[in-house]
Amino acid sequence: MDYVHGYSVEESTRLSAQATTLTDLLHGDTRYPPHSLVLEAGCGVGAQTVILAANSPRASFVSVDISPESLAAARRRVQEAGLTNVTLQHADILDPPFAPGHFDHVFVCFVLEHLPDPTRALRALMRVLRPGGSMTVIEGDHGSAYFHPDSDPARRAIGCLVDLQRRAGGDSLIGRRLYPLLVGAGYRDVTVSPRMVYADASRPELVDGFTRRTFTAMVEGVGEQAVGQGLMDRATWSAGIRDLYRTAEDDGTFCYTFFKAVASR
Amino acid sequence: MDYVHGYSVEESTRLSAQATTLTDLLHGDTRYPPHSLVLEAGCGVGAQTVILAANSPRASFVSVDISPESLAAARRRVQEAGLTNVTLQHADILDPPFAPGHFDHVFVCFVLEHLPDPTRALRALMRVLRPGGSMTVIEGDHGSAYFHPDSDPARRAIGCLVDLQRRAGGDSLIGRRLYPLLVGAGYRDVTVSPRMVYADASRPELVDGFTRRTFTAMVEGVGEQAVGQGLMDRATWSAGIRDLYRTAEDDGTFCYTFFKAVASR
Repeated sequence: MDYVHGYSVEESTRLSAQATTLTDLLHGDTRYPPHSLVLEAGCGVGAQTVILAANSPRASFVSVDISPESLAAARRRVQEAGLTNVTLQHADILDPPFAPGHFDHVFVCFVLEHLPDPTRALRALMRVLRPGGSMTVIEGDHGSAYFHPDSDPARRAIGCLVDLQRRAGGDSLIGRRLYPLLVGAGYRDVTVSPRMVYADASRPELVDGFTRRTFTAMVEGVGEQAVGQGLMDRATWSAGIRDLYRTAEDDGTFCYTFFKAVASR
Repeated sequence: MDYVHGYSVEESTRLSAQATTLTDLLHGDTRYPPHSLVLEAGCGVGAQTVILAANSPRASFVSVDISPESLAAARRRVQEAGLTNVTLQHADILDPPFAPGHFDHVFVCFVLEHLPDPTRALRALMRVLRPGGSMTVIEGDHGSAYFHPDSDPARRAIGCLVDLQRRAGGDSLIGRRLYPLLVGAGYRDVTVSPRMVYADASRPELVDGFTRRTFTAMVEGVGEQAVGQGLMDRATWSAGIRDLYRTAEDDGTFCYTFFKAVASR
């Protein structure tokens, strides 16, 4: 994994900031019943794990990731949160080491965007989901970002992020295609609801928490890769980052949309 | 006005289809109290007028437009709807012929996008709004359109629409900047809420009513202008339109966002 997020200290901080700011928007309507068993597939550093587990305190979670380092960070985070309903386990979500139908529900957040074959993951996860159980998927879509003042360098900088993720085998425009992905993988009753973040000066926490510290920080974080790989020259890159921060001024606005899909096996 | 919408039969049909499909999304939360007097500034062919007036049957509306032809169409539409709380009147919203503070509320929908100086219109309308009265503005933003499968010709075709509107002095990316426009014009308590349309095969009425018959039909409608003015060659244009219709297939998705602002004088 040489791309883009989840694997550096800055990125861990960013993901936490993101989860804190966007918790209600993304997770507010996910509640699992008492005694249900939930697989969180690709928990990373546990940013979503602690929200999920706190929101459904009588459900049990098995949170897996392929990265031992991320799992260690997730374990610390779960302990610090004082949560006792989470088991962390090393596993590959393309080959989950569980019996067929083992889980009542499966939850996947900011994971499919990184996979060369998300359909394969969705099918592998379906195998360990019981018939009638629910699959929840949350992903962003970097093509959903637009802002005022508009800026060509800023749009190009975001385009670099999309290109880098594509070169790494992922798809940062995946949000818009959750519906066909889930239907194509064989899920039933697929319902996709977009969750749009709109930030203007009347919502200063969102401007700071999302426009500045989540989205623009994420783009800024791939600057060396983008310039180093010749996707943009350094001056234009800097102009793009400056223009993204510019949208966080009092007369600026910023829009981004996450997509949440819920489906049944 | 040599641009883009509201002035042909096809366009009138399209605007009606749009209003019918999107009524709840755009207008559901606009209700005016009994005995209040509301100015609808730029009513066009009356597509919004009949919704507004039916939703607030005990309020009185004065709906004005600069085009006598549009007003005649609006008058027929209001009569056919059996509405008795609408007065249609010829007027320029840049110089509204009413006493200062005459209206309790002002409503503007799909109008500012056409104006070279929307701030001037907002200020002129503020003059005829009583202190404490509300201003409601609804506009689209063509830069908010994205879809699956993604397509460069389709994005370029939409870009032609943006270019044509810009050449005509308008701004079809205006939705994202309603907040700074209203604040800059001197309004208080400005609250902007995006209204995102997301269409996939689970919502066939929306796919047909919005993706096909509203948005793609609108883009398709400027084909001769776009090709004639050399913005795109005919083959690429046709590919773009084909690809927009492609997003209405069973594995396609389409996203577009309207912006609604409510503010006080």
